[in-house]
Amino acid sequence: MDLLSIQDPSFLKNLSKKELEELSREIRQFLIEKLSVTGGHIGPNLGVVELTIALHKCFDSPKDKFLWDVGHQSYVHKILTGRACQFDTLRQHKGLCGFPKMVESEHDVWETGHSSTSLSAAMGMAIARDLKGENTHIVPIIGDGALTGGMALEALNHIGHEKKKLIVILNDNEMSIAPNVGALHNVLGRLRTAGKYHWVKDELEYLLKKVPAIGGQLASTAERIKDSLKYLFVSGIFFEELGFTYLGPVDGHDYDDLFENLAYAKKQEGPVLLHVITKKGKGYNPAENDKIGTWHGTGPYKMETGDFVKPESAPPAWSKLVSETVRKIARTDERIVAVTPAMPVGSKLEGFASEFPDRMIDVGIAEQHATTFAAGLATQNMKPFLAIYSTFLQRAYDQVVHDICRQNLNVFIGIDRAGLVGADGETHQGVFDIAFLRHLPNMVLMMPKDENEGQHMVYTAIKYDDGPIAMRYPRGNGLGVPMDEELKEIPIGTWEVLREGEDAAILTFGTTIPMAMEAAEVLSRQGVSVKVVNTRFIKPLDEGMLVGILKENMPILTIEEAVLQGGFGSFVLETSHDLGYQHVEIDRMGIPDQFIEHGSVDKLLEEIGMTTEDVVLRMQKLARQKQKRA
Amino acid sequence: MDLLSIQDPSFLKNLSKKELEELSREIRQFLIEKLSVTGGHIGPNLGVVELTIALHKCFDSPKDKFLWDVGHQSYVHKILTGRACQFDTLRQHKGLCGFPKMVESEHDVWETGHSSTSLSAAMGMAIARDLKGENTHIVPIIGDGALTGGMALEALNHIGHEKKKLIVILNDNEMSIAPNVGALHNVLGRLRTAGKYHWVKDELEYLLKKVPAIGGQLASTAERIKDSLKYLFVSGIFFEELGFTYLGPVDGHDYDDLFENLAYAKKQEGPVLLHVITKKGKGYNPAENDKIGTWHGTGPYKMETGDFVKPESAPPAWSKLVSETVRKIARTDERIVAVTPAMPVGSKLEGFASEFPDRMIDVGIAEQHATTFAAGLATQNMKPFLAIYSTFLQRAYDQVVHDICRQNLNVFIGIDRAGLVGADGETHQGVFDIAFLRHLPNMVLMMPKDENEGQHMVYTAIKYDDGPIAMRYPRGNGLGVPMDEELKEIPIGTWEVLREGEDAAILTFGTTIPMAMEAAEVLSRQGVSVKVVNTRFIKPLDEGMLVGILKENMPILTIEEAVLQGGFGSFVLETSHDLGYQHVEIDRMGIPDQFIEHGSVDKLLEEIGMTTEDVVLRMQKLARQKQKRA
Repeated sequence: MDLLSIQDPSFLKNLSKKELEELSREIRQFLIEKLSVTGGHIGPNLGVVELTIALHKCFDSPKDKFLWDVGHQSYVHKILTGRACQFDTLRQHKGLCGFPKMVESEHDVWETGHSSTSLSAAMGMAIARDLKGENTHIVPIIGDGALTGGMALEALNHIGHEKKKLIVILNDNEMSIAPNVGALHNVLGRLRTAGKYHWVKDELEYLLKKVPAIGGQLASTAERIKDSLKYLFVSGIFFEELGFTYLGPVDGHDYDDLFENLAYAKKQEGPVLLHVITKKGKGYNPAENDKIGTWHGTGPYKMETGDFVKPESAPPAWSKLVSETVRKIARTDERIVAVTPAMPVGSKLEGFASEFPDRMIDVGIAEQHATTFAAGLATQNMKPFLAIYSTFLQRAYDQVVHDICRQNLNVFIGIDRAGLVGADGETHQGVFDIAFLRHLPNMVLMMPKDENEGQHMVYTAIKYDDGPIAMRYPRGNGLGVPMDEELKEIPIGTWEVLREGEDAAILTFGTTIPMAMEAAEVLSRQGVSVKVVNTRFIKPLDEGMLVGILKENMPILTIEEAVLQGGFGSFVLETSHDLGYQHVEIDRMGIPDQFIEHGSVDKLLEEIGMTTEDVVLRMQKLARQKQKRA
Repeated sequence: MDLLSIQDPSFLKNLSKKELEELSREIRQFLIEKLSVTGGHIGPNLGVVELTIALHKCFDSPKDKFLWDVGHQSYVHKILTGRACQFDTLRQHKGLCGFPKMVESEHDVWETGHSSTSLSAAMGMAIARDLKGENTHIVPIIGDGALTGGMALEALNHIGHEKKKLIVILNDNEMSIAPNVGALHNVLGRLRTAGKYHWVKDELEYLLKKVPAIGGQLASTAERIKDSLKYLFVSGIFFEELGFTYLGPVDGHDYDDLFENLAYAKKQEGPVLLHVITKKGKGYNPAENDKIGTWHGTGPYKMETGDFVKPESAPPAWSKLVSETVRKIARTDERIVAVTPAMPVGSKLEGFASEFPDRMIDVGIAEQHATTFAAGLATQNMKPFLAIYSTFLQRAYDQVVHDICRQNLNVFIGIDRAGLVGADGETHQGVFDIAFLRHLPNMVLMMPKDENEGQHMVYTAIKYDDGPIAMRYPRGNGLGVPMDEELKEIPIGTWEVLREGEDAAILTFGTTIPMAMEAAEVLSRQGVSVKVVNTRFIKPLDEGMLVGILKENMPILTIEEAVLQGGFGSFVLETSHDLGYQHVEIDRMGIPDQFIEHGSVDKLLEEIGMTTEDVVLRMQKLARQKQKRA
């Protein structure tokens, strides 16, 4: 059928199983084609084609509510709810979002991006439904990886206790972003091999009733009891103990199995957990054979071969640069332990892991635990390198405050994907970290201008032993600058003058430095002499250098690819006032008080007003104001 | 014996059981006496007397490491490690801290305050120990309530997977801060009634081996199998499934039982969970009979009767005022649902709960879930009132960012215990919330000057339907002002002039307003005319009124009982610059860049330099600067 003609999922009601299977094939082909051009989360979506179709056939969205945990597996749902025609714009500026988005469709009832939120939200919806006396199904779909996130476990606990009607779909695809870790995963693994638990339980009860009567058949019965007990030991008891009716495991690519169990789940009164086994990447060989998560989310690729379309000879990615530098230092510093919350591939820690398997700990999707675990390591004079994306560090704010900063422990936080990240959009922009970290006592926060300074900063962070130290680095690749052979320490709290000037100063760090340098060059040709400072330490500021600039009464423009409120520029303002230089003009450029949607970083910066041209204009204005006052 | 003479726990090794029992009695008497004067966490500590003594007898602290989750149950540990002589100063300025504190003793190896961190930290210590090839026991002691916190579950999952040697003591006292909720609690409840699980499992295995052979005894054996299965269904399988060796339940007030199981636990190779049943308040009738948590933490009381020593006729507590106002409005507004993470008593929600049992949801110690659950309610046009302490809201930062603010949902966050809280100290000061909330798009943040304005603000928050709105209120009681009969809405983003003046202005809100008014009065007698503004909206600012003040070129002092970095004063600075009034003198008073220890709020404010006198001095300086410039 023509996928582009789909308006809403009601057409599914009349399709035969054969037609559904044909539809599944078409959707897979559509996704493989479209994503080969745009990139996107191909693996997770190929895995849930039948599951999504079955859900939309068995339930009535939007009356019944689907909550897609994490949300990057909602592409099939988007196709079935009338959005196939927008896939050419997937994850692009003003285009289709890669995650559920309420403004796109009434079928998107909950927006996601970070993992493990769907169960809590579903519980809120269920309580609201019951208070209002309505009659709808609430269906969160959560992966086995997301289930290890603390808040998902908090929610399971609450749901099991309250006994509200709720159908949790556990999408067990054996591999979340990276191969799962954790005991919970072992439980799920055993479930997979244990066959159908609800059958086993019935069987066992039946056997127990019969045991006194069967006499001669004793030996074989006892054997069967033993077998059944084995299942009991390894099976859905985990969820049953929490108060759920456990159903499954179900083959997530078999419509009969799905329909039968979904129908049964709908009839239950209390909370149900339906355990569905799916295969990530199903139906596309390169993705299906992926063992480490390369095909979880990708850029464009060649459809026929599965080769990735890579920019030619790009400099190394920031993640790799940082992780490999840590690895190099770890050869002579035994204190170093790398910690990742389920992001060994994203954080490019594979090399470290292969060289130091005992000193690389992947704790699963569990940012809070990862952070306090790192703090625990630090109490024993280890030097943990906590590699974590800026946006995910948000989930460990309290642990950074209390367990790391308050105890002033030597944890090195590698804040990956700091700043705008582009295609993943609102939920993944790493723009709040300066505002939520710089008010924390004892915290040192820095960001390098290029990968050479980056490697020295990694070295600095590892040598530093006066408390927590964090280094931000952006998504994407370095600048391709030459690398020093020998690593050296950068004195804490020191800035660096990149260009001298007398009329005005730009204070900036990290990704926005090239823009500042270009603007200074343009302004120089216009007769305005601009000083450019690499403010590589965001906290503490280089007060000495700042005072020097303030004393010269040069107007200042601060630039940061992060929120303005409470950010770096704000810190410069505060400090200038505290030091008694409140009369210096200070203009702050950064991200305004709004969430920033998906799109290429350049496009987003243009929209925000953060281009070389904008810098030139604002510097001209500052310089004019100074002339007026002079 | 003389408790004051204890230097370290080594003396325990030589005591007989009878002597230990005598020691337990003496410690209980000591605690009941001392805390009757100072107040403190009496219930939890009376519950762990035998457990703490047994731990120190069986292990060798500080080589072996105890991690006291939450930490308010560490008083007995403090007595046994040489700190009995400091109990007269408990929770007082420069006195003994109510939580573990590394600077106090080498036996305090991990500091706590917020719940559920001990397992993560212990895992960090265990990994460090094994990497270094050391041989020590790591023993986190965690309550059944704290076990529902997401990060504790994340840690259990990780520990079970890694199979490191670790002895988790589950202190199951049936009641954490409030009666526990959650399915996990039900599991623990069943464990309590299920007898000794490890015995049951052995028994069952024995029976299964025998079944084929016993023939004639079949009926009774089958019965026994059924009984055993019942235990299996309800027992420690939950923890066993996660990879722990489960031991218990153990009577936490029986030394023989404790010694036997601790000895067994020490011998195990992998992670052990030892389930210890204790009675909160054990040995002191008023605390032992407490059903709702009144004796969890208290102020001073009369030892003989258990009557609390209350200030005479104090105005109502802020928590009560807010919750009762919500309750009143809930009578005509069916959308309102109150949500608390295990703090129904602290947040004074008992009245609301009794009147609206279906609309009051206690989710247990689970701040993340509570927050996203509230967001889920809001998607269904309910109006959740999320009552949460400022310090605990830190744990839900990401959920506030992504699930509430990003989706712009109508959640009313009641930020209780905002500002300095006094005796609970560093881990409980509510001083970061402005800095971690005001940079969030869509957030409205306010704080009332007194309880009358407070009730109108509650009404305003409930009527507001343009997104999230949060109201801060302090620990302690209102001012005793007259209360309006009728509730009214306060226009969002409006400030209020409390006192007119021409020479300078004070911008402040909440608890610091009385100080500002007093200072203005003093200054007025000195001929300095000071305008005082109640900046009750922290975000958005009242830009109109701010511009009015800036235009008059009056020097401004901002005052906030919160961190200065990125706080309210910082926001005023940013806005003044953005609006083009960078030449106005702005001085900011607030909490400097350091963690604030325990002590009375007045004492702490004095130390920080936030008294009426300080305000007067700083205003004089500002006024002089203005004169100089004029």
